[in-house]
Amino acid sequence: MGLAARDWAAQAAQCRDILKQSIPISYQIPHEKLPPKSRLNVAGFPRESGQLSERELLITETTATDLVNKMGSETWTAEEVTVAFLKRATIGQQLLNFATEFLAEDALAQAKRLDAIFQETHELVGPLHGVPISVKEHIGIKGRVCNAGFVGWSDFVSPDDAYIVQFLRNAGAIIHVRTNEPQSLMHMDSANNITGRTLNPFNRNLSPGGSSGGEGASLGFRCAALGAGTDIGGSSRLPAAFNGVYGFRPTACRLPLAGLRATGPGQESIRGVVGPLASSVDDLELFMKSVLDQNPWKKDPSLVPVPWRSVDTPVSLTVGIMKDDNVVHPHPPITRALLVAEQKLKAAGVNIVEWEPFQHGQINKITMSLFSADGHRNLKEALETSGEPILPLTEGVLNWGNGISVYENWELDYKREILRAQYHGLMQQRGIDVILSPVYLGVAPEHETGTYIGYTSVWNVLDHPAVVIPTGLAVDQDLDVSDTAYRPRSELDAKEQAKYAPERFRDAPIGLQLIGKHFGDEELLARAKLVHQIITSP
Amino acid sequence: MGLAARDWAAQAAQCRDILKQSIPISYQIPHEKLPPKSRLNVAGFPRESGQLSERELLITETTATDLVNKMGSETWTAEEVTVAFLKRATIGQQLLNFATEFLAEDALAQAKRLDAIFQETHELVGPLHGVPISVKEHIGIKGRVCNAGFVGWSDFVSPDDAYIVQFLRNAGAIIHVRTNEPQSLMHMDSANNITGRTLNPFNRNLSPGGSSGGEGASLGFRCAALGAGTDIGGSSRLPAAFNGVYGFRPTACRLPLAGLRATGPGQESIRGVVGPLASSVDDLELFMKSVLDQNPWKKDPSLVPVPWRSVDTPVSLTVGIMKDDNVVHPHPPITRALLVAEQKLKAAGVNIVEWEPFQHGQINKITMSLFSADGHRNLKEALETSGEPILPLTEGVLNWGNGISVYENWELDYKREILRAQYHGLMQQRGIDVILSPVYLGVAPEHETGTYIGYTSVWNVLDHPAVVIPTGLAVDQDLDVSDTAYRPRSELDAKEQAKYAPERFRDAPIGLQLIGKHFGDEELLARAKLVHQIITSP
Repeated sequence: MGLAARDWAAQAAQCRDILKQSIPISYQIPHEKLPPKSRLNVAGFPRESGQLSERELLITETTATDLVNKMGSETWTAEEVTVAFLKRATIGQQLLNFATEFLAEDALAQAKRLDAIFQETHELVGPLHGVPISVKEHIGIKGRVCNAGFVGWSDFVSPDDAYIVQFLRNAGAIIHVRTNEPQSLMHMDSANNITGRTLNPFNRNLSPGGSSGGEGASLGFRCAALGAGTDIGGSSRLPAAFNGVYGFRPTACRLPLAGLRATGPGQESIRGVVGPLASSVDDLELFMKSVLDQNPWKKDPSLVPVPWRSVDTPVSLTVGIMKDDNVVHPHPPITRALLVAEQKLKAAGVNIVEWEPFQHGQINKITMSLFSADGHRNLKEALETSGEPILPLTEGVLNWGNGISVYENWELDYKREILRAQYHGLMQQRGIDVILSPVYLGVAPEHETGTYIGYTSVWNVLDHPAVVIPTGLAVDQDLDVSDTAYRPRSELDAKEQAKYAPERFRDAPIGLQLIGKHFGDEELLARAKLVHQIITSP
Repeated sequence: MGLAARDWAAQAAQCRDILKQSIPISYQIPHEKLPPKSRLNVAGFPRESGQLSERELLITETTATDLVNKMGSETWTAEEVTVAFLKRATIGQQLLNFATEFLAEDALAQAKRLDAIFQETHELVGPLHGVPISVKEHIGIKGRVCNAGFVGWSDFVSPDDAYIVQFLRNAGAIIHVRTNEPQSLMHMDSANNITGRTLNPFNRNLSPGGSSGGEGASLGFRCAALGAGTDIGGSSRLPAAFNGVYGFRPTACRLPLAGLRATGPGQESIRGVVGPLASSVDDLELFMKSVLDQNPWKKDPSLVPVPWRSVDTPVSLTVGIMKDDNVVHPHPPITRALLVAEQKLKAAGVNIVEWEPFQHGQINKITMSLFSADGHRNLKEALETSGEPILPLTEGVLNWGNGISVYENWELDYKREILRAQYHGLMQQRGIDVILSPVYLGVAPEHETGTYIGYTSVWNVLDHPAVVIPTGLAVDQDLDVSDTAYRPRSELDAKEQAKYAPERFRDAPIGLQLIGKHFGDEELLARAKLVHQIITSP
C-alpha cells in the first residue's frame, strides 16, 4: 500500500468516524435483533422492531404538513417528533447505511427551543415548525465537514449553513441527519469511498438511486419528514421513484444553491437545483412555499424574484402521456403503471393525449456533451486530490465525453435554447398541461447497474419542472413478466432491456413523472395532486 | 482587386442599395441647402431647414408618452406623427448617415390603419399607439435583410419579426427606420463596410457611440420617438449618453432576444439585452411596460416571468456616487457633471454616500476573457464569410483575448457569481438605492478612438439594471479645461487622459449613469426620474 493509498484511506476513515461518533447509540437496535442480510425488504421493520412506540410509528408515518398541524394543536411536541424520527433514522442507518452524519444533539436542542417558544407564544415559529428534515451531505452545514462524496475534500468545513438550510431553519425546520451521495455526485446510485453504499429499503439488492440516494432511502424508510436533495440530471427524482416517495425538480434559479459543494460550480449550461423529497405533494409544496415566502432572491442575486403562487385545483386537465422516449424502451412494470394510470385518468374524465417525444435522442447527446464540457477536469482534480479509487460508475461518467471547446459549448447552448422554445411551443400548441412519463426506464436498478438518465435529464436541459409521484404499485411477479414481443431498437436499448427480469426487482415501488411548463412549478404541483389522487384511487 | 475583394464590395453595395432605395426622396433637402461638412453641430438644423412645419417640429420634439396622449385626445393623427418623424429622419440620414433602411411605406400604411381603427373605436390600439420607433438593424424585421453589420451576412432575410418587434407592434408602435451598427457589434462607434459611418448630431467629428450608434443619433436628432437598441457591454447606454438622450439596460432575461442576429448567440456568461433609447425616463418605462404587460415569457421560455411593477416616487433616497472606477480617471467634463449633480442632490435633501468601486479592475479582466472566450472564432467566421476588410476597432476587439477553455470559462462564471453576490451585499449593507457614475470616462469620443467600456460593462457582468440620463450640461470650453493636477495611475489611464482637450469635444452633451439593483428595474427608473428632475433643475 503506497503513501497515497494510505492517505486516502486515512482521510476517508476520518470522515467515517464523524458518522460513527454521531449515531445516537441509545436508539440503536442490538445487532442480534436486526433482520438477516438476506432479508431484502426492510421497509416494515420499524413496526416489527419494538423500538418505536405506536405513537412514534404514527409520528414518523405522518406527512410534514400534518406534523405541523399536530404541533400547532399541541397534539405532539417538536421534541417527541424529533426523537421519533431520530430513532427511526438510527434503525434506518443500521439497515440501509443512508447517513453521513447525525445531528441529534443540535436537533434536540432546537426542538426544545421551538417547544419553549410555542409554550410561551402559542404560535408556531414558521411553516416548518419542528419538521425533521434530512439534508444531502453536499449541502453545507455550518462548522461541519462537507466532502461532497470526495475523499480529497474531507478537510473542508463549511463556514456557514448553505442558504437553503438557513431558509429551512428560519421556517422552523430541524435538520437531524445528513445523507449519503455517490462519488462524483453523478451516479444513479449512492456509494462512495467514505461512507460506502446506501441500500434501498424495499429491496436491499437494489439501488436507492442517486445522487440523492441517501435522501431517497431516508424518505422511503421515513427517517425524515422532508428531505433536501439536489437534481442536475434526475438526482432528486430517481431516488424518489426508487424509494416510493415524492420528489421535485423545480425550475432553475428559484431555490438558492449558495453553500453547496460540487465540482464545476460555474457550469451553467444545465443548471443544478435543490430538489425536495417528501411523503406527499402537499409536503413538496410546503417546502417550496416555506422557502420562497422568505424572498430568497433578496439574499441571493442568482435567483429570480418569482414568489410562490397559490394555485387552485385545476377544473380541467389535459395530460400528454409519453410511454417511451424513443431511445430506450421502458421495462414492463413501468409500462403497466403508465397503462393503469391512463385508464384511471380517462375514467376520471381527464383529457389524455399521446405525447410523441420531441428529439429526446438529440437532447441526450447535448446533455452528455454539456456535462463533460470541461473534459471532466474538475471531476478528475477532485478525485486526484486524494488518489482515492475511481468507482465503476464514475468510470462510466468519465466516458460521457472528452470535452469540448467554448465555441462548441456556445453552439450547444444555442441549440438547447432552440429546443426549449420548440418544446415549449409544442406543449402550448398541443394544449398539454402536464406530461406523464417514466422517471427511469425501470424501477430501482440493481446496485451499480443504472446508467440511462434520459427520462429525467431532458427536463433539466429544457428547464421544465418535474415531479415524481408514487403510483402505489410495486413490481408484480405475475403481471410484470418480460415482454416477449420486445425488439431492440439499438445496442443501448438491448442492453437496458436485458437488465430486466421480474424476480430481480421484487417489491420495488413504481413511481411516475409529471412534467410541467417552464416556471409553471405551482401549476404542476396542483395538477400532480389531482393526478396522484386519481391514479391511486381504488 | 481579387475575387474575394470584389465579392465583398458587391455584397455590401447590394445592402447599401436597399438603404438608398428606401429613403423617402420627397422628404430630402436639396444638397445645396444642407449645412457644410465643416459645420459640426447640426442638432438645430431641422428647425432652420424650413423642411418641417412648426407642428412637425413640435411633434418630433414631443416624448412618446405625450405623443400617445396627443393621439388619444385627437390632437394629432398617427399619420401626421409618422410623416413628421420620417421627414426629420430623412434629414438626419443626410447629415448623420444613421440608417440602414427606411420602412416609410409600411410605416405610413400602419399609421393609416391605426387612425382608421381609432376613428371607429375612439380607442388607442395599445400603449404605443402610433409611436414611431427606430430599430437597430440586427433586430430582425420580417422579410428584410438582417446583416448585423457583417457584409457576409447580407443575404440573410429574417423569416419573422424579432419577438421584441412583434410586442412593440402589438402595442401599436410604428417601425419607420432601421439603424446603423458597427462591424462586430462591439465597437463604441458605428461604422461598417456596408452603410459606413454614423455621425454625432452635436458634433460630427465625434462618435455617436456604439454599438447602437444609429439609435443614438436617431434619438439625439429626434428621428424617432423611441428606439430599440441592444446592450451587452454598454451598447445602448454609451450612444444615449453621447447623443444627449436616455438609455436603459434592463436586467437580463426580461425583454426577448429571439429574432436578433449576432455572433455567438449561445454565449451566456454575459447576457446581451434589448435596451431602449428615449427622450425621457417616462418613455423608457413606457417601452418596458408596453412589452412586459404582454407577458412575453409565455411566448419565449428564455425569459423570466416577472411582470412590470408600478413603483411610487421614492420618499427618501440614498445615492452612492462613484466618481472614478479606480481604473481610468474620467475626463474633466464628466467630473464636473458629477460634482454639479452631487451638489444639487445634497441641496435637495438626498442622502449622498461616496461609492468606493468594488473590484472593477478585476471585473474588467473577467469581462474581456468572457467576451473572447471562443478565441473570437465566431467573429472571425462572420468576417471571413465575405473577406471584408477588418476595421481598426474590430482589430482592437480581436485583441481582447485569445480564448479560454470550458474549464476556465466555468471558473470565471463562478467568480462572476461570487462578485455578483458581493456587490449585491455591499449595496444592501451600505444602504444604497442607486449608484451614480460616469457612463464612459468622457463625452462622445472622436471617431475610432473610444475603447474603454469598463464604466458600462461592469453592470452587464453583474447584471444590474442601469439607466443613462442627460444632465442638461455640455462640454464647456472654460470650465472643462484639462486637469493640471492629473497623475496617471497606469499606461491605460495615461492613454485615455491624453485623448482629452476641451476644444475637441465642443457641444458634446454630458450624460450620467444610474445603477440599480438586480431585477430592481422598476425602482431604478422611478428613482432616475427624481434624480433627473433634481440635477436638471436650475
